Amino acid sequence: MTKALERREKLRADLILAAERMIAQRGLAGLKTRDLAREIGCANGAVYNLVADVDELVLRVGSRTLHRLDEALSAAVRAGNPSPQETLVCIAIAYCDFAAENLELWRAMFEHRMEADKDVPDWSAKDQMQLFRHIYVPLATLFPERGADELGITARSLFSAVHGMVVLGLEQRLVAVPLPALRKEIAGLVRAMIDGLIARER
Amino acid sequence: MTKALERREKLRADLILAAERMIAQRGLAGLKTRDLAREIGCANGAVYNLVADVDELVLRVGSRTLHRLDEALSAAVRAGNPSPQETLVCIAIAYCDFAAENLELWRAMFEHRMEADKDVPDWSAKDQMQLFRHIYVPLATLFPERGADELGITARSLFSAVHGMVVLGLEQRLVAVPLPALRKEIAGLVRAMIDGLIARER
Repeated sequence: MTKALERREKLRADLILAAERMIAQRGLAGLKTRDLAREIGCANGAVYNLVADVDELVLRVGSRTLHRLDEALSAAVRAGNPSPQETLVCIAIAYCDFAAENLELWRAMFEHRMEADKDVPDWSAKDQMQLFRHIYVPLATLFPERGADELGITARSLFSAVHGMVVLGLEQRLVAVPLPALRKEIAGLVRAMIDGLIARER
Repeated sequence: MTKALERREKLRADLILAAERMIAQRGLAGLKTRDLAREIGCANGAVYNLVADVDELVLRVGSRTLHRLDEALSAAVRAGNPSPQETLVCIAIAYCDFAAENLELWRAMFEHRMEADKDVPDWSAKDQMQLFRHIYVPLATLFPERGADELGITARSLFSAVHGMVVLGLEQRLVAVPLPALRKEIAGLVRAMIDGLIARER
């Protein structure tokens, strides 16, 4: 790698880290490329030599967040050797805890909308799909007779339901719930859902 | 009422309807008080003689949306005379359909954040709590031995889970699901959750 390329890579990494810190502190709406340029010591326009646009920058930060979430979920799975059902409960609670601890970065992934007519790039879509394996694997053990498509749908339903509980539980609104109570509610509902799915399978 | 007060009330109603149309067309981010003032034929600053601030305006629109949602859920409950469990399924599907048909207005209610340090006013909180009765009543029939607090928590969990499925299902993203498939997934998961909750109760 030439010195110039090396410098560019270093600056690009600085930019993504600075954006991550800014979103964590101010939320997605507080992300200002002008402030980022000043922070990493480059001209305003030079930011767009490092990333194509703000969409890419936000997705690069999201990619880092997803990798940390992946680690947190892997740790939750490794922590015990429980039944597949209890593994799903552990994953749901780890998801809730991760969201609470990384509130603005986690929110940013869901609040961010691509500019009109632009699709999420493949590398980012892959980051997202990767995470589903944590839900998919225990489900495949619980429902060995289900095919891949059906398991995919069940995984998505379960994830969406838990995501909804975490979103509304962590909002500072009417339904705001203290974290220990939220964990308990999530565990209760995931257990009930799995029980019910197993019973309906028979 | 004096003529001046009548005129003010008329203008206020016009403002709220214009804001509703604007959010429905452009989303919450597209709501511009300058455009609203032009549309209802008053000076920019005069908008703030009609509502205290943009927060109030958005909540007034939200109040109208919640009342229409209430009607949609009531109609779903009246439509059949099924079991309490199937009533909960009907309500969940009606919620999904309402969100799909009123996408931007529905999103606006959840995207809107009050300005820092301001609480949601009581009239708006009441609008929101009212809706929980649709879930609470069938749950109380299904779980007669549960107290009001516990039923409230179950109602919140169920609502949050369905809300999550609707939010992620209607997003134009990775997990975007065609509406008929989404309805089926929601019905399946609500039935499983209730089955599971009943089984755990015994």
